[in-house]
Amino acid sequence: MSSPPVPGYRFAAPFEIPAASPIRSLVPYANRPGTISMAGGYPATELFDVEGLNAASAKVGARLAACLQYSNIEGQAALRAQLARLSAERGIQCDPDTELAVTGGSQQSLALLARVMLQPGDAAIIESPCFPNSRQALRHTGATVHAVPSGPDGIDLDALEALAARVQPKLVSVVATFSNPCGATLSLARRRRLLELAARYRFLLVEDDPYGELRFEGETVPPLAALAEGEQRNWVAYISSMSKTMAPALRIGWMIAPAEVRRRCVGAKAADDMASSAWIQEIVAQYIEDGRYHAHVPRIREAYAGRCDALARALTEELADRVTFRKPQGGMFCWARFNGDIDAGKVLPYAIEHEVVYVPGKAFYPDPAQADVSAMRLSFATMSAAEIRQGMVRLRAALQAYAEGRPVSVTLPA
Amino acid sequence: MSSPPVPGYRFAAPFEIPAASPIRSLVPYANRPGTISMAGGYPATELFDVEGLNAASAKVGARLAACLQYSNIEGQAALRAQLARLSAERGIQCDPDTELAVTGGSQQSLALLARVMLQPGDAAIIESPCFPNSRQALRHTGATVHAVPSGPDGIDLDALEALAARVQPKLVSVVATFSNPCGATLSLARRRRLLELAARYRFLLVEDDPYGELRFEGETVPPLAALAEGEQRNWVAYISSMSKTMAPALRIGWMIAPAEVRRRCVGAKAADDMASSAWIQEIVAQYIEDGRYHAHVPRIREAYAGRCDALARALTEELADRVTFRKPQGGMFCWARFNGDIDAGKVLPYAIEHEVVYVPGKAFYPDPAQADVSAMRLSFATMSAAEIRQGMVRLRAALQAYAEGRPVSVTLPA
Repeated sequence: MSSPPVPGYRFAAPFEIPAASPIRSLVPYANRPGTISMAGGYPATELFDVEGLNAASAKVGARLAACLQYSNIEGQAALRAQLARLSAERGIQCDPDTELAVTGGSQQSLALLARVMLQPGDAAIIESPCFPNSRQALRHTGATVHAVPSGPDGIDLDALEALAARVQPKLVSVVATFSNPCGATLSLARRRRLLELAARYRFLLVEDDPYGELRFEGETVPPLAALAEGEQRNWVAYISSMSKTMAPALRIGWMIAPAEVRRRCVGAKAADDMASSAWIQEIVAQYIEDGRYHAHVPRIREAYAGRCDALARALTEELADRVTFRKPQGGMFCWARFNGDIDAGKVLPYAIEHEVVYVPGKAFYPDPAQADVSAMRLSFATMSAAEIRQGMVRLRAALQAYAEGRPVSVTLPA
Repeated sequence: MSSPPVPGYRFAAPFEIPAASPIRSLVPYANRPGTISMAGGYPATELFDVEGLNAASAKVGARLAACLQYSNIEGQAALRAQLARLSAERGIQCDPDTELAVTGGSQQSLALLARVMLQPGDAAIIESPCFPNSRQALRHTGATVHAVPSGPDGIDLDALEALAARVQPKLVSVVATFSNPCGATLSLARRRRLLELAARYRFLLVEDDPYGELRFEGETVPPLAALAEGEQRNWVAYISSMSKTMAPALRIGWMIAPAEVRRRCVGAKAADDMASSAWIQEIVAQYIEDGRYHAHVPRIREAYAGRCDALARALTEELADRVTFRKPQGGMFCWARFNGDIDAGKVLPYAIEHEVVYVPGKAFYPDPAQADVSAMRLSFATMSAAEIRQGMVRLRAALQAYAEGRPVSVTLPA
């Protein structure tokens, strides 16, 4: 089916220009043998509970005949019950039959919510910086996606209120806990105000919470969905994922949303992919039922705590005068800035040459013109404490080489 | 999170009214113990190759650590290679790296293609009658979905050409082989003309082929994608699925599309669900590599051949004067009509009372006002030959009760 050129396709507007991914373009560098990558948005591979997953899989294998047919769009009853229990432990009460649905990861939860709410002419709001795929999910509906500044304290609520009053968004998407890329957590007071704004301006507040369970210090702040009261409860949808706590390749997440919203998302999913794999859903349900989930998450927390400590120490000891950062209390990411307005994108080729990779902050800004060019995202999830230390030593050397204006062999796409 | 009433949500237009599913509303009746259901769109559960799937799963389990991380959006390389080989056996050549993508079933392939092509204001065309979820996937883009009459010979190409000239569709979706619900197969000559129309009117012709491998009589007609020549190749996308040949719960399908189209679909999938489960993908790839796929499909074919024969015989012997039908040469469905313009929807409560269920044809028409109310879809896939015979005996009795105007206890939603 090789295609002659210029066939004159007429694509839908959001797809006219295929999306470029500045983060994905770093993968070849990050994967070079010997390179220390702080660039990935991946959980630690060596921490996957392969044994526990295989044990759950074997149990499901013994009753596989019952798991192979077309299944409920909203998800297997066994898994919905487990996820409702898990959500209740996070403070969120729901009816698993009318308010909870299993999805193909948190990403699909967001995409479904976006699709049932948004169409061309509508407005949505996302944080800036943010995870680019989240923004894409909103953008693909044809809606206009506005950005509100965010940072180490989370979304700027004054700016959000002013924008909401002006553009009347139908949906606002936030990561309230250990955000990607900022590692930020919204305070309790800010959460309450955000919920008030949702009810006042009648936008669906989508709380994307893939990292919330990965808290390794400080006090737990309840999810927005757990704090919503009265009318606010109509305006908040909670989405989460097994990607960071179990494994990304399961592609299992869930949403908890008001019944009228969830019902339409299930309708959207019917026409999108009919259901998530019942086989995998049963494995996930079995894994939680086996007690493996609750045994495993503390192991990830502990490992990430050590790695985050190592990063904070290395940044302080190796780069104190050159990099500013705030140590996150959980999750996978640390947002840092080069002092003196040094452009992280310009340092990156030197870093790659010195065999350490990070993602320049610019990659996470919906509008690159608004970007803090000195910022970078450092993932501490996938490298050992020793590697992280070594990575920061290399970064110091790279920064030195950059400052001295030495020639560099690596050329990155603009 | 229980919600007070009337929160005043503003949904996107395609989701304002949640979709009702007349087919799903029959499930409780179809599942009654003792009832013979010819209503399901399901493959036969007892034919699933549980042993082969468990064997493939065990092999993947032995290397599970390597299958749990985030993965390529376009699908695992091993599976893409196998699917390209499988497609080549069907006559379709493609580059698995630029023209093939793994999806969450044929349904997701269609949804992705629809999404990258269609937006509000655009036109798309689907057959009437058709599988309702296919139409929904197009409709959810906000595009106007027009219908072209179809039947036991497939889509009416004169009507399609007239409509295409008028509405300039960007996408036309057909099931060319053993369609759902009609069991129809487009002739070779009609396929060639359909390809000409695609190139002439520059619409993306989406060939949904979940049933093509289930031919049990007659000569194979190559897929549209295998027949496309020159410029036509830019205008055809082939989509297929493992749901009918392996198992629906895998949620694995694929698309083969021109590189520029496929590339955008991969971009859409990134924001939809990041990828299909790499774990399940590896199981499917392993299963095919093990030779199980090619050993198993003939078993399904043979079983369905016997069931289709049983249905045709029973219809002829029990209902010759009351029902007209054309025996399909493959697939899972037989489209039949009650003679004398008897309304299949009105007979259905009597059928349910007599413990046999079918789907009234009306459920498959985008515009119910255009429906052939005497038509019904009979699935022969899931019942044994003896049950099918018994079902048709019951249907005769139900029809008799209806004709006599006897009271009936079953009440169905309108």
